[in-house]
Formats: sequence, C-alpha cells, structure tokens
Amino acid sequence: MNIRFYNARILTMDGGYDIIKGELWVSGNKIIYIGDGTDTDRIYESQPENIIKWDREIDAKNNLLMPGFKDAHTHTAMTFLRSYADDMPLSDWLNTQVFPKEALLTPEDIYILTKHGIMEYLTSGITAGFDMYMQMDAGAKAASECGFRYVLCGAINDFGGTVEDCERDYNKFNNMNELISYVYGFHAEYTTKMEIMEGLAALGKKYKAPIYMHNSETKSEVEGCIERWGKTPTKLFNDLGIYDYGGGGFHCVWMSEEDIDIFKQRKLYAVTNPASNTKLASGIAPIQTYMDKDINLAIGTDGAASNNCLDMFREMFLMTGLAKLREMDASAVSAEKVLKAATSGGALSMGLFDADVLKEGKLADIIMIDMHQPNMQPENNIVKNIVYSGSKQNVKMTMINGNILYEDMKFNIGVEPEDVYKQANDIIQRMIRG
Amino acid sequence: MNIRFYNARILTMDGGYDIIKGELWVSGNKIIYIGDGTDTDRIYESQPENIIKWDREIDAKNNLLMPGFKDAHTHTAMTFLRSYADDMPLSDWLNTQVFPKEALLTPEDIYILTKHGIMEYLTSGITAGFDMYMQMDAGAKAASECGFRYVLCGAINDFGGTVEDCERDYNKFNNMNELISYVYGFHAEYTTKMEIMEGLAALGKKYKAPIYMHNSETKSEVEGCIERWGKTPTKLFNDLGIYDYGGGGFHCVWMSEEDIDIFKQRKLYAVTNPASNTKLASGIAPIQTYMDKDINLAIGTDGAASNNCLDMFREMFLMTGLAKLREMDASAVSAEKVLKAATSGGALSMGLFDADVLKEGKLADIIMIDMHQPNMQPENNIVKNIVYSGSKQNVKMTMINGNILYEDMKFNIGVEPEDVYKQANDIIQRMIRG
Repeated sequence: MNIRFYNARILTMDGGYDIIKGELWVSGNKIIYIGDGTDTDRIYESQPENIIKWDREIDAKNNLLMPGFKDAHTHTAMTFLRSYADDMPLSDWLNTQVFPKEALLTPEDIYILTKHGIMEYLTSGITAGFDMYMQMDAGAKAASECGFRYVLCGAINDFGGTVEDCERDYNKFNNMNELISYVYGFHAEYTTKMEIMEGLAALGKKYKAPIYMHNSETKSEVEGCIERWGKTPTKLFNDLGIYDYGGGGFHCVWMSEEDIDIFKQRKLYAVTNPASNTKLASGIAPIQTYMDKDINLAIGTDGAASNNCLDMFREMFLMTGLAKLREMDASAVSAEKVLKAATSGGALSMGLFDADVLKEGKLADIIMIDMHQPNMQPENNIVKNIVYSGSKQNVKMTMINGNILYEDMKFNIGVEPEDVYKQANDIIQRMIRG
Repeated sequence: MNIRFYNARILTMDGGYDIIKGELWVSGNKIIYIGDGTDTDRIYESQPENIIKWDREIDAKNNLLMPGFKDAHTHTAMTFLRSYADDMPLSDWLNTQVFPKEALLTPEDIYILTKHGIMEYLTSGITAGFDMYMQMDAGAKAASECGFRYVLCGAINDFGGTVEDCERDYNKFNNMNELISYVYGFHAEYTTKMEIMEGLAALGKKYKAPIYMHNSETKSEVEGCIERWGKTPTKLFNDLGIYDYGGGGFHCVWMSEEDIDIFKQRKLYAVTNPASNTKLASGIAPIQTYMDKDINLAIGTDGAASNNCLDMFREMFLMTGLAKLREMDASAVSAEKVLKAATSGGALSMGLFDADVLKEGKLADIIMIDMHQPNMQPENNIVKNIVYSGSKQNVKMTMINGNILYEDMKFNIGVEPEDVYKQANDIIQRMIRG
C-alpha cells in the first residue's frame, strides 16, 4: 500500500519537538517521505517510471501525525479480569484472584483476549506492546493476524517454563514475521529460583541480549529480596550478569541510589507503570531522579487487570502528575520527556529501533491526533496539550507497519468487535461458573 | 421534544447501582418514564389523546444511560490558558501568569471561552458546571445559548466585586432562565478581606443560602490563615456564620480533624479537584477519611488552566487512585462512591436537586456510555469499568434539559467548533503580542 498524508502537521520526535507542516508518505511498511512537499522529486526519482500509485491520499486536515505510543510493559490477555477483582493489595490480588483464574486459561482464550487487548491499544494510539504472558504462540498468532507489532517478553518463573524453552522461543519468535519479536525475560525475583535466573544470565551472554523482569514494584518485594539474598533485586540481577547486555526493569518504584547507578551504568530501561502502581497502591516511582540521572525511560500500562485500562494518555498524565506530587514540585518531570518515554523510549526499550521516531526509512507506525477537538485548543503548546489534556477521543487513526488498523473509531483487524466482546465475557463467565 | 430511548441499559443512581434494562422516555426537559417497557400505559394515559408523538426514537443498542457528570468546581473560561504556563507552583502560577492574563479578558472573550469550555464538558459527559469566574453575564449568555446547565458561584474578592453586587447577581441569575442559577461564593480567605466575608455571611443568613469558596487547597494557604486569624479557614468561615446554611469548600486538601467535624456537622460539601491538585503539586485530599465520616463529596476539574483538561473520567480515576496511594491501601475509596460524587453528589452540591439521578419527574440531564468499546468489556462490573477504565471516547451522547447537545462526536450548540477554536487562539495570541 502507498498512502499519502497531506495537509498534515508532523511531530517527528526525531531529536526534538518541532512540528513540520506538510506531507508524510508511506510505501509498504516504511515512511518514504516527510517534508513540506517541495522536495519530493528525489522520492519520485527513486520509483519505477517516476510514479507512485497512491492507494489512498488522506487529507490530514491540519491534524497531527506522530509516532505511535509504545506500551512497554503489559499483560495483554488479562483483559478478562478487568473490574473483576479490584481494590486489593498486589500480593493478595495475585495469589487469590489472578493466578487461580489464569490457571484456567486455554491457548484459545489467550488468543481471543489478546485480540481484545490489541483493539484497546489501537483506540489509544498504541502501536506496539511489550507483552509478558503465557502461551506465547496464542498471543503471537493474535497479533500477527491483527497486524499489531508485538514484542514478547520471556515470562518464565517457578510455575512455568524452562531456560531451554526460553532459548527456543527466542529463536522461534525472532524469526516468525516482521511484526513479532522476542526479548529474554523472567517474571520476578520473588517468583523465580536462582537456577533459572542463572540460566537466563547465561543465555543473555550467549546471545548478547538484554533481559527484563518485574523489578522493585513493591516495597515488600525489595525487602524480601534483601532478606533472601542480602541485596536489592537490581544489585542481585547485576551481580548475576543478567544486565550484562542491557535490558531493564518493569515498575522500578522502590529503587535505591545504588540501583539507580547500576541502571545508569548499564544503560538499562526503567519502565514505569504509573496507573497500575496507583491502583494497587504500590507507590510512586522516582521519575524526576531518573530524569536527573539520564536513566532511559519507557511507559507501560501493565494490562487491564490492574490498571484497569490500556490508555497511554492516562499513563502520561500520571507519570508527570505523580512525580509532581512526590517531589511536591509542580515543575517536576516535563511533558516533553514524558512524550519521549511514551514513544521513542518505549520503542528502544523493546528493541524496536526502527519504530522510535518518524523519519524517512523508519517503520510506518504512526498515529493521527485529532486537533479539532476542544481539549486540543488553543494551541499554546501542542506537546503539553497531548500530555496534559489528551484522551483516546483524540486518536483519529492508528497505523502499524504501513496498515491503518483503526480509523474514526472503526477497527480494521479482520475480526468483528462484538464477537471478541462476546467471547471475552464467555471466558470469565465460564470461570465464574466453575 | 419527545425522545424515546429503547434497547437501553439504565444506571439510575437512584439509591443504588442496579441497572435496569428497558426504556427511558424524555418529554420536554423531564424524564417521564423509566422501566422495562411493560408498564407504559400509565404514561400514555397522562397524555392528550393517549398519544405521544416522538420526535426521535433512539435505539440505544444496549448502551448505558446514566446521569450526566457534574463538574462541581471549575473556571470554565480559563481554556485560553491551557498549556500556556504549566509546571509552576500555585502561588507563582496565579500571580505571574494567571492574574495578569485574566486582567486582559473582555466580556466577549469570556463569552467565547465559556463556549469552548462547554464543548469540552460535553465531550466528557458533563451536563452541568459550578463555575466561578468573572463577567458572569458573559458566561451565563454563553451557557444559555449552548443549552448548558450552568450554576454561577460568586467569585468576589479584594480585586473585584462588592457584597451588593453579589446580592444583585443572586437575584438576577436565579431568575434568568431554567438553565442558569447562582450560589453565593467568594474566592478564598487569602484573597478576600474580612469585611467582604462578613457581608457574605450576612447575605447567606438573609437568604438562608449556602456559600462556597476555595478552602484549604494548599498547605501554605492554611498556614497563612492560621497566622492571620489564629484558626484554619474552615474554622474561620464557621465562626463567621458563613456555613450557617450549608455550602462547602473547593479543593479541601489540607483539612484538620476539627475542620472535617465542621463539614460533618454542617452537612457541607467537600468538592475535590484531584487532577488540579496533582498538576500543581498541592497535595492529595483525605478522601477516605471524608468517606469514613460520611462527608458530602463532589468532584471538579478546576478548569483547563491548571488541569489541563475538563474530563470527569480523569478526575474519577484520580479520586480513587490517589486515595489508594495516600492510604497505601488498594481498597481505599470505592468506585461506586466515586461515581456517586461525580453525578448526584455534584448535583446536590450546586443546588441542582432535580438533576441528581435518573427518575421519572427529574430533569433529563442524561449521558449515553458506549459499551461497545474494548475498554468497557467484559462486563464484570459496569460501575468499575466506568470509573477505572472509562474515557471520553465512551461518551456517545450528552443530553441536557431534554436536548441532545453532543452525539457521536458532533456538537449541537449553535456554533461552529472551528470558529470557537480560532477565536480562542486569537484571544491568547492577542495577549502574548501585548
């Protein structure tokens, strides 16, 4: 497909926050032109017969094209537990509600529930997810069919998976198709025995690959780790060589100064999950400190069970808002840096080095923000409008890999929304009936 | 207009959270029927010739009708300052950015900017605003023309207005038209001299009327009041007789135990503004304590300058989420009570005793929530879906006083959105140019 956007404003996020007025052209799964439209000869010249046959020419009507948001930590298929068991602390919630229900999930369930989650991502302009879940074949199939960019994160722990499985998955999913990839990971220190962590560290070394896990989500998690190993999770992982080739941690709420120094030194990603940490009362991550120390940042929703929605606008407001409360400083955590974490930061954290910014040659993972809405006006500062005032209502289009999967509130993912909703309800009802 | 909704689910909020499946009928500005459709004879019998001529019959497609949200503290016309001066503490922000710009506003500016704010309310299902601003004639004209339910709150302070003005406004706006009303109020203790506060207390007594003001928004506000008067703002207002006939306070972040007892005893409303308090780093209100003590609660956005948007979904998530963080308890502040504060609590706080719940004879201030969206599925708990997962994207229709003002993202308020946006941009640009 060749798609031409004209009358657009383009926030490329490529090295700054300037906005270009003009055109953006997509051919196949790549961006082939961004500019004011006066220098397109060079693009035509690269084409057979100097012609581009447009499949669609879209008048952007002065709306904003920008890189899609990246959900850098999520459990996509957990949509079935939305509003099912709320208002409980993390450990009770996991042990009495989440784990017993998850044990009943079939691969077919996960396939449907992943499609459900993907639909929700699209409504929020999320073009890729860094998904930690079971039954990875089911999730990868759902994402491939929908056309969603999907990075699987290893989820091995004491209750499922072996190190050998991880190596097999790494090679399988990284060679599956252009939408799917795989990054090594394990659930968390408190759910994973030393042997597995050491095995993963060895795999990371073998493939020179980054490794991720839940890290310092709650105070009690960190305290437990110190009790068990005499050190924080970050220090433990670092000492084990898990962070030798990068990676990072999900949540990163309760980090010591030494932990943060390790993140800095290893160029690790702190993936913050502000809505989930709020709703589970886990705490507020020290985002301003991370920014002061130039720690790499990305943002995740953590899935619909804990959050309870998959909405990057909520996460962005909370990332800066909670930091302002934590620091008691209204100037903490700038909107610009939040938007960077939500887009290019997320992409880089999950290894999507060509989906970070809008630029000729980069992947066409693009969203259109409807500026003709009251919450986007006046245009005193468009970046701040998006971060402080934006809402799903502003997502006019979500394009992934050159395909428009969501436009004017309609999905184009090869499945009827009502069928997905019906099946999602059936899954949880079947479990409740027992 | 006679409008019949069928195939609806109806969350009346009338004494509970049960959902009725069936029909809701509107005639003129009132709800005339709610039920399963089998007992409508009694309604027809009350009509001339036993007929109702429907202007519209709307298939709700199993979507949810519920009471509109009430924005119980806002400065509507401040839309022009959205994303203009962010990331500053309250006192600097007010003195160096807000007040100097506001001094340049003409009544015509406020008329346009109020329409802009009203459009944004409609996108979030907000059917009434408790608006504290200058140039009340301009705001009332804008609201009347749009069809928006608008409760003016007196905004007198040392920089503008006299007690006599307030009495005149009270009688004028409470007799203007069915959409407009007026409640006594003043800006805050720190901006208002004793003579004015005493004058308002006398007016409150004369009219047996409630009085509102900013109360205990910041720690330094409370400290300053104690320095000046030897007591907290709430104690001062109570001792002055300001709370003799009810009312309450906006923000109520930094309240003492004695303050809360006064609120309890006087049946006052604590109107919480969680997004604004977050963004300005003012603090987290003790909502769980208020709920434990059965304090009346309502929710406000505080306007687009501090927030930066007018979105009740954001406020609802923050009201419960921030309480969970404050109490370090994931079970703090239930979704049900938050929804009550956002609807009936707000209505009662601003004197809209017939716009609180959906019931035959009540005002037709109704919204339709689109349940056919991924973030509303599965339907494990619809109230929690709304509070924890809801978004402006779910607002399919906003009806005020029997008129549909917003439907499927289109406005019906007698003004072109683009004209409003252009004028809003012109206003702030004119000020910047000087």
